[in-house]
This record gives sequence, C-alpha cells and structure tokens, in this order.
Amino acid sequence: MENLRYSHNKLYILDQTLLPNKEKWVEIKSKEQAYKAIQTLMVRGAPAIGIFAAYSMAVFSADNDIYELKEYLDSSRPTAVNLSWATSRMVTAYEQGKSLIDEAIEIHNEDIEMCRKISEYGLSLLKDGDGIITHCNAGELAASRYGTGLGPLILGKENGYSFHVFSDETRPLLQGARLTSYELERAGIDVTLICDNMAGLVMKKGLANAVLVGCDRIAANGDVANKIGTGSLAVLAKYYNIPFYVLGPYSTVDFNCKCGDDIVIEERDGEEIKEKYFEKPTALKETKCFNPAFDVTDNSLITAIITDMGIVYPPFDVNLKEMLK
Amino acid sequence: MENLRYSHNKLYILDQTLLPNKEKWVEIKSKEQAYKAIQTLMVRGAPAIGIFAAYSMAVFSADNDIYELKEYLDSSRPTAVNLSWATSRMVTAYEQGKSLIDEAIEIHNEDIEMCRKISEYGLSLLKDGDGIITHCNAGELAASRYGTGLGPLILGKENGYSFHVFSDETRPLLQGARLTSYELERAGIDVTLICDNMAGLVMKKGLANAVLVGCDRIAANGDVANKIGTGSLAVLAKYYNIPFYVLGPYSTVDFNCKCGDDIVIEERDGEEIKEKYFEKPTALKETKCFNPAFDVTDNSLITAIITDMGIVYPPFDVNLKEMLK
Repeated sequence: MENLRYSHNKLYILDQTLLPNKEKWVEIKSKEQAYKAIQTLMVRGAPAIGIFAAYSMAVFSADNDIYELKEYLDSSRPTAVNLSWATSRMVTAYEQGKSLIDEAIEIHNEDIEMCRKISEYGLSLLKDGDGIITHCNAGELAASRYGTGLGPLILGKENGYSFHVFSDETRPLLQGARLTSYELERAGIDVTLICDNMAGLVMKKGLANAVLVGCDRIAANGDVANKIGTGSLAVLAKYYNIPFYVLGPYSTVDFNCKCGDDIVIEERDGEEIKEKYFEKPTALKETKCFNPAFDVTDNSLITAIITDMGIVYPPFDVNLKEMLK
Repeated sequence: MENLRYSHNKLYILDQTLLPNKEKWVEIKSKEQAYKAIQTLMVRGAPAIGIFAAYSMAVFSADNDIYELKEYLDSSRPTAVNLSWATSRMVTAYEQGKSLIDEAIEIHNEDIEMCRKISEYGLSLLKDGDGIITHCNAGELAASRYGTGLGPLILGKENGYSFHVFSDETRPLLQGARLTSYELERAGIDVTLICDNMAGLVMKKGLANAVLVGCDRIAANGDVANKIGTGSLAVLAKYYNIPFYVLGPYSTVDFNCKCGDDIVIEERDGEEIKEKYFEKPTALKETKCFNPAFDVTDNSLITAIITDMGIVYPPFDVNLKEMLK
C-alpha cells in the first residue's frame, strides 16, 4: 500500500482524504501544493509526512531558496516533529553538497528499515491464526512499508501467517474504518470492521489474542499518548487478560517527559463529532462536545513496547533507559 | 419531552427518526400507519411502544376486529415483549366491557408512575453537581415521563439539581447523540456529547461520579443485557472506581434466564456501521463488519440495579429474588 511515488523528478501522492471511496494519485507540482497536501491530510502519519517533505525539498529546491523552503514546509503542521527533523536533514545534506534526491531516498529507505525491525520484533510475539484488535491507523499509509502498529500483520502476511484482525473504526475521524480496514483489505489480510464500543465484546468472546496500537509519544516511565480510545482499549485488555502491545520507533520515547501527566492533550472542534462525515448533524447545534484527540495509556496496562531497537518490558522507567546503553 | 399525544380520539406521535434535525408530529390515522410507525422506529423504546400500541387499539378498534388488530400490531416488532403485553391488556379490557381509551390512559399513567419510582430511587444515590456518564437512550422519548436510565437526571432537574452529563454518542445508531443529548438539552440539563471511546478519559479526568444506563434484560444472577458498549463502560467504571448503576422496571428481570450466557445477542447488518447516517461509505464494500446490537454486563461490574420496587445491591442472585417476597 504505497502512499508516495517518486520518478524522474516527479512526485506523486495518494490522496488519503478520498479513501476508501477513491484511489486518486495527485502530482505535487509546487511547494504550495506540497504545503496544502500536508495541511489538509492528503498525506498523514508522522513518518509519511517526513518522507514526503524530504522529497518535496529535493524536487522544489531548484526553484526555491532551500532555507525558505524548509521554513515554509515546516509551518504546514507545526507540531509534527518528524517534519522538521526531515527538512533539517535535507538542509544539512545541501550544505554538505550531497545529492538532495539521494538524501530523500535514504530517509525513505531508513524508515522502511525501521518499520521492518519493529514489525519483526512484533511478529515474534504473535502466532499464526491469532485474533488481533487494532485502533486508529499506524500502517503503510502512515509510514512507508509495513508501518508500525500494523507492521507485524503486514510482515506476517508476507510470511504466510493468517491473522484475524478487528479494526476499531476509531471515532470521530474514522481512521480505523477509512484507512486501516482499507489497507488490510488491500493487503489480503482478514479484517473485520467494528465500532469502538464493540472491542470489549470481541475480547469477551475470546476472539482476540493481542491488541496492537501505534503511539504518538512515549513518556520516560512508559505512559503512552495515542489516539483517543487507546487507553480504554488497554483497560479492557487488562480486564480480559489480553496482551496489549504498543509499537513505534524508539525515537518516540521522550525522556524529557517524565510521565503521562506531563502530556498536554489536544482538544479539537466538536464539529468533528457532530457533523463531519455525516449526512446530517447528529445533535443540536447548541449541544456541547468534548473532543480530545488523544489519551494517555498508563504504563501498568501495557504488556510491552515494541521498538526498532527491541522489545521493552516493564518496569519501563528502567528498561526504556537501559536500551540507550 | 413528549413522544405521543392523544386528544379527542386523535393520536399523534413525534417522529423520532427525524430527530434531532426536525421535530415533526405525525397524526396516526390508520392501523397500517400505526404498524409502520413501530416498525420504522418513529416510536421506539419498549415502554413507549407499549403505550402507543394501547392507544392505537383504542383509536382503531371502532373499525377493526380487536383480536385481528392485536395480532396485526404485535407483528410489527415481534420481539418487543411490552408490545404484546399492552395489546393483551387492551383485549382483556375489551372482554370485560371497559372503556378502551381509559385503559390506554391507565397503561400510560402506570408507566409514568413506574418511571417516577425508578427516578426517585436513582436520584437518592446522586448528589447535586454530580458528573454522570450515560449510554444509548433510556429517557422520556423511550418511555413516558422521566424514562428509566435518564429518569434521575430529569427528576433531579425538576428538583433543582445541577448535573453535568456526558452522553456517549452510542455507535452505530447514535441514539446517545440523536436522542439523549437532544432530550437533555431540551430539558435544560447540562449535557456534553462525546464519542464512545472518550468515556474512559472523562472518568480518568475525574469528571464522572456515576454511570447510569438502562437495560433490555436482567438475568436472575444480575447479569444485564443492554446496548452494545454498556459492558465496556462498566469495565472502565470498575477500573476508575466509579459507581455503575443499571435502571429499569423490576419486570425486566427474567428469572427463567439464569445468567448472561443464556442471552442470545442479536447481530445486525454491517451497513449500519459502514453506511447508515454517513455521506459516503466509511469502508470498502467487501470489508466485513461485526455488528452486535447488545452486550452483557457481568454482575460483578454493577454497583446496583435500580427498579421501581427499590434498589438492589449484590449479591444479585439472592437480592433480586428477595424483592418478590
């Protein structure tokens, strides 16, 4: 499931806002188009944004000042750390007189390699025939190949494993329906779409052997910020005694962040709950909404954190640091 | 929040399928229209269906054989126990030469009285200013006055209590958004709409003092069948140490049903998850869905069952029977 193609100085992306109803490839012909593609979520997922920005720098550097280009692209999604990381690396390559397109391709390949490692470690914890619950989307669409949260499933499929995946639709933005169920279906993996409030029953019926989720930020003590609903899924997994695995690059660990309480949770507009995607509003105009985009999963609910450096088990405060040695 | 009006042999209902975007009252002029109103969920909620069927019997008995009328209306929603209970009572009244409209009004008033009792018992467990999480809709729209699950909130409002209610939208059919947030807003109660996967964060933030839900069936051991997602909410409430209250008429206890395992859960069409209410499908046509309409909440997760006969605490297998004495 590719989300980006580069060939002969031309850059194309799959417009993810149109999925699953339309697979439309769009050529990105200007820095303005690149900016808009990131801003409007045509390309999304931290690693994917970084890779796309790197290629954009390579393609549009001929007509633009490289420093202005970096600053401009960075401003398309200011909180995306991967974005400025990738553009900084492109500026350094430029200053060192390296080929920019070679650098972009290297960033891309490094991401594939990192995802492959996460996927291999993750796959080592699963067995053929397992039932798996996933939340949100941390697959190939959000990264390069394999992805993080979905990586073991896609790598497993390549290696002949048959998984039975239950994909939470992931309200309010439905990434689990629109993206995860779509990309697993396309990958030929057995996937069943459920509403978020059905995951508990899937566990109770004995249909789930593990929960796999990605992560946006990992605190030094192993508390994990991820898409809203992840924390509740972890509480359910604990209650039903099902392993709960968080997958992501080791670089997601933020040692400056002691614990989950230090993570500020973004609250978004209620229109996303009441109106977006619906034919008609689901509630009155005057009805308030609470729309947190993320939640924090307590480290005590997490069985293991699976990174490109290896699998980390509790106590996370000790073992996450241990990996640095 | 009325859902039905009767005056001078004319019967009107609020079309609940159009809520919250349109408040349309429809006159029911024939038994065929009455049948369709039940079947298409223009009127829904077990008590409300029973009351509506009783009035329909009274209004249309002049032009119809009463026995055929009963059978015809009963077939509009064969699994609704309240429906055939109410129509049977109307037939008995007919055989005893009673006024049919008086009997319908009595059924209606008895329901109000029952809901009032449930609401009073429920309210005795809450305090002014409490934060409350609700799921699905068990309010006035589903019954007569007060409702069951929402009854303490509406009665409390009448008595000067200020509650802060978080209403789960309740996927896939969105009864919490379309009906609960609507009727609480109209009743002047502070209500905030959330997605089902946000209830855990509301609890974690300390914003909830209790969870109130209705019920479709209570097993002899206190296991409770209710709208999908109820069981997961109960697991979360247990984890966050928040009281979990189930509200319903004592007649909901089915002593022939030993425990939750004996309750068969209805699975509905995946179209409800992927298509209904949405502008465009949220997943591919070929993507499978699992769409259970209900789940069973283990009795060990329930703080108390609140009935019109009183409040029942664990051990439920003993204390539910105790009430019969």
